[in-house]
Amino acid sequence: MFAPTYLDWNATTPLDPVVREAMLPWLDGRFGNASSRHEYGRQARAAIDEARARVAAAVGADYTEVVFTSGGSEANNLFIKGAAATMKPGVVAVSAIEHPCVREPALQLRRQGWTGREIAVDGQGRIDAGDWQAVLAERPALISVMLANNETGVLQDVAALAREARAAGACLHTDAVQALGKVEMDFRALGVQALTVSAHKIGGPLGAGALVLDKRVELAPLIAGGGQERGLRSGTENVAAIVGFGIACERAAARREAEAQRLTTLRGELERGLAAFGATVFSAAAPRLPNTVFFAADGIDGETLVAKLDRAGFACASGSACSSANPEPSRTLLAMGVPAQTARGAVRVSLGRDNGTDDVARFLTTFGRLADELKNLTAMAV
Amino acid sequence: MFAPTYLDWNATTPLDPVVREAMLPWLDGRFGNASSRHEYGRQARAAIDEARARVAAAVGADYTEVVFTSGGSEANNLFIKGAAATMKPGVVAVSAIEHPCVREPALQLRRQGWTGREIAVDGQGRIDAGDWQAVLAERPALISVMLANNETGVLQDVAALAREARAAGACLHTDAVQALGKVEMDFRALGVQALTVSAHKIGGPLGAGALVLDKRVELAPLIAGGGQERGLRSGTENVAAIVGFGIACERAAARREAEAQRLTTLRGELERGLAAFGATVFSAAAPRLPNTVFFAADGIDGETLVAKLDRAGFACASGSACSSANPEPSRTLLAMGVPAQTARGAVRVSLGRDNGTDDVARFLTTFGRLADELKNLTAMAV
Ligand SMILES: Cc1ncc(COP(=O)(O)O)c(C=O)c1O
Ligand SMILES: Cc1ncc(COP(=O)(O)O)c(C=O)c1O
Repeated sequence: MFAPTYLDWNATTPLDPVVREAMLPWLDGRFGNASSRHEYGRQARAAIDEARARVAAAVGADYTEVVFTSGGSEANNLFIKGAAATMKPGVVAVSAIEHPCVREPALQLRRQGWTGREIAVDGQGRIDAGDWQAVLAERPALISVMLANNETGVLQDVAALAREARAAGACLHTDAVQALGKVEMDFRALGVQALTVSAHKIGGPLGAGALVLDKRVELAPLIAGGGQERGLRSGTENVAAIVGFGIACERAAARREAEAQRLTTLRGELERGLAAFGATVFSAAAPRLPNTVFFAADGIDGETLVAKLDRAGFACASGSACSSANPEPSRTLLAMGVPAQTARGAVRVSLGRDNGTDDVARFLTTFGRLADELKNLTAMAV
Repeated sequence: MFAPTYLDWNATTPLDPVVREAMLPWLDGRFGNASSRHEYGRQARAAIDEARARVAAAVGADYTEVVFTSGGSEANNLFIKGAAATMKPGVVAVSAIEHPCVREPALQLRRQGWTGREIAVDGQGRIDAGDWQAVLAERPALISVMLANNETGVLQDVAALAREARAAGACLHTDAVQALGKVEMDFRALGVQALTVSAHKIGGPLGAGALVLDKRVELAPLIAGGGQERGLRSGTENVAAIVGFGIACERAAARREAEAQRLTTLRGELERGLAAFGATVFSAAAPRLPNTVFFAADGIDGETLVAKLDRAGFACASGSACSSANPEPSRTLLAMGVPAQTARGAVRVSLGRDNGTDDVARFLTTFGRLADELKNLTAMAV
């Protein structure tokens, strides 16, 4: 089988073999509806409970604070819509660089009389301090600011924002989908009311995510019905995926520090190589995820370059994976004040467990060759 | 491993080995985010497209009418809340025997100014003709009537209801989760605007379901974000589960007729045996699923009997699996006018692919013994 070098770990990750092993029995004889009151059901329930403890441990939360969902998008929608449904319409503020699965539900709230407010970011993609204060002065009921951005990898000081949000009487949620397993994370220390994580970004399976939720926050379920997950998320639990999520969390936490160091080194090699070709790395001056490099080379179209890299055996992204169907330049970059023309050149390389120095070296060689070809084409066209 | 005889196929089903084989590559080297524009992404997209065609074929719908979700509960919520969100508040009518994942979202709509209306059923659990006409006279905007009930197995004449609903200007949805693979199903012939199915009830995996939707129906997404599934269901697609769902649909359709005949015979054996012990089968006079027997024996508590059957090596249900955490007697039976005392005795046996005559015979022997024990206990207590 043709296996291109995978450099798109922020889009999704291959399943960790240890996670797969833990899941397989649940795709075999150990099936069962966790609500059933018989041996099969009890075993499924016990497996979910164990996984819940593992996820809670990985994010520094209590066992009872973990609400399993089908993924990150559902968890983000559950928080935004679920919290709003229990409140009188007010202001909902989300940062200008949120993933669409935070931005869109916030926009949907307008239909129920809410006012949507975007929080500006600076040129490095960090929350703009002045606009943050202006937002708080508007007394928002709900705020969502992501812990790590999926495109630039930029980290926000969510703990500090949470302190100020709390003082202003707002409920703060953070999308930690890209942060989990890559940076230290502690629900208690962050001080947020809610936090979203997703299994498939950390070597776990597709089909499981969680909203970690302070029990004092009232929430209406997005999926109502049988009353699973303390009434906050109905539907027969996806046991295999939840079991895999638990193991993936444990594994990601165990190797996080060593991996972060290794990937930071690798990222350095990649960035030095890109600089030598005259490429610019976005948000280079901000604290960032150790695995993510979002860059552009003058006069080269990102989409075209990614397509050429694909044919040359390298899988990377031009925008965030989820919005790749959308040919508009990255919203994150536009929010940072990057000119549309430059933003169109953006390419994201996100590294992971299986990548090593050789991958980076081969990528750089190919990038150099393709960039030259594309520049010559552009020169000819002018 | 201790493997009790599984007689709870309406709660969930073991994964069909052929389905598992089709899924395994997607839990291995063939991973990928279907939105990614590289080799891994394109392969995932192609696999989802193939699965979509398979699901569409199994329900007699067009490829473009299938919206993948995480399961049946999500699909039901998506329809009820999603359709309501695009309309002015009006009347939403759901049958009195709907699964909680239809009933609860309909109740949630009250907060947005909707009027919830239950449609009565008769003593056999079929839609009450008089109340149906009364409901239509109230000009409901949305109606949901399930194709097959999860507890009694009762089938409704949804095609006839759809004709009348359409004439009354209502939008009719049917929860076909329990019907899929057990009775013939054709979206076009049913004439409904929307239909819900779920993979794990037909030998497919947990984590995939679908809302089959007439394209003329406008719907707001429940999970908004990246814009997957034509903007109706965002979130990175669960490729393995969707692939499994497709194969499970194909397999279920292929064996449906033969299985229905085989299970009807088996059900007959079971019901004759139960009658000999003086048990009553609910909805016995109505058209029912070939695999489902919901019954009660005088003076015996259903919960207690199911617990004893569990210890004796038989996995069956006392109420619907999803509401088993709730000790209230079955709502379905109460809606049918069954006295609460009788309803408390209810036990559900739902047969499937792996069950044969020997399972039924052994179950009957054990049931007879346990029923005698329990009756003696009750007699002593009086
Ligand atoms: C920052 C961020 N939030 C949310 C999501 C959505 O998560 P999921 O794919 O599990 O729905 C993603 C990835 O797609 C993401 O990168
Ligand atoms: C009739 C009916 N509808 C909906 C559901 C919910 O489906 P799922 O478990 O896939 O969420 C079930 C089963 O739990 C059911 O029996």
